[in-house]
Amino acid sequence: MLRFFLLSFAIYKKKNYFCKIFVAGSLDSAISITNKSMNPNLQISQRGVEMPESPIRKLAPLAYDAEDNGVKIYRLNIGQPDLPTPKRALEVLKNVDRETLEYSPSQGYKSLRKALVNYYDRYQIKLTPEEIIITSGGSEAVLFAFLSCLNPGDEIIVPEPAYANYMAFAVSAGAVIRTVTTTIDEGFCLPKVEQFEELINERTKAILICNPNNPTGYLYTQKEMNQIRDLVKSHNLYLFSDEVYREFIYTGSPYISAMHLEGIEQNVVLIDSMSKRYSECGIRIGALITKNAEIRKTVMKFCQARLSPPLLGQIVAEASIEGTEAYSRKVYEQYVERRKCLIDGVNRINGCYTPLPMGAFYTVAKLPVDDAEKFCAWCLTYFRWKDSETPKTITFSGREIECTGETIMMAPAAGFYTTPGMGKDEVRLAYVLCTENIKRALFLLEKALKEYNSKA
Amino acid sequence: MLRFFLLSFAIYKKKNYFCKIFVAGSLDSAISITNKSMNPNLQISQRGVEMPESPIRKLAPLAYDAEDNGVKIYRLNIGQPDLPTPKRALEVLKNVDRETLEYSPSQGYKSLRKALVNYYDRYQIKLTPEEIIITSGGSEAVLFAFLSCLNPGDEIIVPEPAYANYMAFAVSAGAVIRTVTTTIDEGFCLPKVEQFEELINERTKAILICNPNNPTGYLYTQKEMNQIRDLVKSHNLYLFSDEVYREFIYTGSPYISAMHLEGIEQNVVLIDSMSKRYSECGIRIGALITKNAEIRKTVMKFCQARLSPPLLGQIVAEASIEGTEAYSRKVYEQYVERRKCLIDGVNRINGCYTPLPMGAFYTVAKLPVDDAEKFCAWCLTYFRWKDSETPKTITFSGREIECTGETIMMAPAAGFYTTPGMGKDEVRLAYVLCTENIKRALFLLEKALKEYNSKA
Repeated sequence: MLRFFLLSFAIYKKKNYFCKIFVAGSLDSAISITNKSMNPNLQISQRGVEMPESPIRKLAPLAYDAEDNGVKIYRLNIGQPDLPTPKRALEVLKNVDRETLEYSPSQGYKSLRKALVNYYDRYQIKLTPEEIIITSGGSEAVLFAFLSCLNPGDEIIVPEPAYANYMAFAVSAGAVIRTVTTTIDEGFCLPKVEQFEELINERTKAILICNPNNPTGYLYTQKEMNQIRDLVKSHNLYLFSDEVYREFIYTGSPYISAMHLEGIEQNVVLIDSMSKRYSECGIRIGALITKNAEIRKTVMKFCQARLSPPLLGQIVAEASIEGTEAYSRKVYEQYVERRKCLIDGVNRINGCYTPLPMGAFYTVAKLPVDDAEKFCAWCLTYFRWKDSETPKTITFSGREIECTGETIMMAPAAGFYTTPGMGKDEVRLAYVLCTENIKRALFLLEKALKEYNSKA
Repeated sequence: MLRFFLLSFAIYKKKNYFCKIFVAGSLDSAISITNKSMNPNLQISQRGVEMPESPIRKLAPLAYDAEDNGVKIYRLNIGQPDLPTPKRALEVLKNVDRETLEYSPSQGYKSLRKALVNYYDRYQIKLTPEEIIITSGGSEAVLFAFLSCLNPGDEIIVPEPAYANYMAFAVSAGAVIRTVTTTIDEGFCLPKVEQFEELINERTKAILICNPNNPTGYLYTQKEMNQIRDLVKSHNLYLFSDEVYREFIYTGSPYISAMHLEGIEQNVVLIDSMSKRYSECGIRIGALITKNAEIRKTVMKFCQARLSPPLLGQIVAEASIEGTEAYSRKVYEQYVERRKCLIDGVNRINGCYTPLPMGAFYTVAKLPVDDAEKFCAWCLTYFRWKDSETPKTITFSGREIECTGETIMMAPAAGFYTTPGMGKDEVRLAYVLCTENIKRALFLLEKALKEYNSKA
């Protein structure tokens, strides 16, 4: 069992720790200080041991081997859209006429931050350029928020399933993630406030939400956001809110940003990224946004240490923000179509179920298998479909090779939970492929399930 | 006194800690776990408090105000070369014909890693692409090396003065930097091995060197490198070696990489960056290189969490590595000239002294002032020179404004030491400007010193 929380679970067992806690290095680290003389040198760090492997990327070696052998893989595992980056942004990149690609300011270019002020204004989020700090992707924003706000041992409450890398950044900062479980049967809505309050103790320092949610596609309602606001207010917690998918809301329900919540303005840290909305994941441009000047001052010290965010990425990002309304509309329409195609398709397969995601471009689906990770690995290693629609060749590592069969890649969902046993028969599916490819992937999923279950 | 180690010094006093230790958060963090109930929420983290401000960037607000008022500033404070990025790399950037700027592999593109294998081969460093991990600048390589190899409370021995951001990354990882002092009077050569051994205890886990050195320009001799090798070997320590300035060695002395040292192949982690040698600091491409597979496996977990290094930067970096021999020769020649111009000039000013740096493009200079930080701040705030050579206008924030005077910006050297009192009358000077501007800066330095000291 290679599951993401394997280590934390081992620690949980070893320490007889109470249920649903994800020990992210801090306690062991603190203990290791006192035990130092027992540790021989040249060991890697405890947090290095505890760092989870990405559930999205962990099956990558199997995929690599399959492709190397001519297998065509339909990737539903990763949020890498196949859509083009805005033409406008690519044009600006071609016309960069700098002689020297120099450092940019640690906070990011002011012109980009000004463009973002206008962008957020469309969502009724009122900001000044000073309240925005440009980061190397949303990832760095999460890491710097944790490093700046949390001490080792401090606890963050996160609804699970959750974006797996939050756990990794918590380990990096020595913080501890504790989860309230949401379930597929309840459509991943937030549990009652009591379940949050059960977890709150003197170490609780923050709540972290992702809205619209990765991996579930859930969108928090006004009522749920008010519940979070009241918890944050009454316990004086930080609220880290990852809202990188705000562009993708399909239900007509209102988007409630953490920045819209009254009375907790000093508590909120907004995490954002250009990656998904402009299909430019590679430029590594995100942002950390807060009205709290002390947090900003602290985050800026981490920003200065790493000198500056990527220069070229900032140029592309700035060009992507304005004058791309038509692009965004078109992209949105494509996701509407892809979502319908994937969700309808999954629910038509015998034994499969997924709720209708309200936002983002992911869904968590239940499959008729005992262990979704085993099934995902089996698809990459053994399942090879071939019929008249199978392409003749695939391109891999720059060479064209004969196609020996088709298969699918999915992310086992257990890696998005910290509670042992949760998500064992679930996968996360991203609908970032064109509908034609999604349809083919669904066809393959049905065939794969049939073959897998007939052998079991 | 705003000095960089102010906080650590306060802690040192408070704790009655022994001399020359830089407490980087771990002890306080550990203590904060036990004292948690005393801490109200919504405080920033202890490591956030302890994070040093960059001595290179801390005077930036004064510079901003001066420029806003029309002052022309000659910047000797920062290692931002004014030289152009290789034309070949800029051409490749203009010809990027991707439709989607997608994620790159977490380890970085293999083609870039292969190009680096050839590059290191020129320096008799034999590597495979698998031994190279591409990072967001050398900064991320240092951070990931610390996070992967060091537990909170682990100690790293660093010769001081040292690149200030090492301290910041140590704070991020909860590690502790302890320094052996090198002095301007001895030309910044390494102290005797006994001074290292005095610091080694059961918490010592690593030695960190920068070679050629930032800020001193010192180049370690074969004898010194052997001394370090023996220490690393006999105490089984990690050796983190930052060699981003290998291109810039002016004395004909051999460049001894940590990778050349026999018998400690598993101990060495090489830090590298494209920023300085190709004058492309903004692309944020560096590398972490090690023969130690376990370190690589751990570092890769941190790499996967942040998804990928900058895509566009990798394209530029790859195009910079090959076919740029003529460029590198020309750049080298310019630094030879600039070095001569700066060093001769500084040593001609009454009361100033700097040793001849053997490599990199920095030097540490002693000035005839009590407090170099005060003097540097005074230059930015009060010193305004005007004569017939003063330009009529400057360009600031995109607008052309009347030039009201000239001044210089330098980095106070105290921020590069952790030992209280060290470097108080020293500054770090970067010779990254053209000789004409270096000459003008030296002229201004002489005038500024005269005016400053006549007022004292």
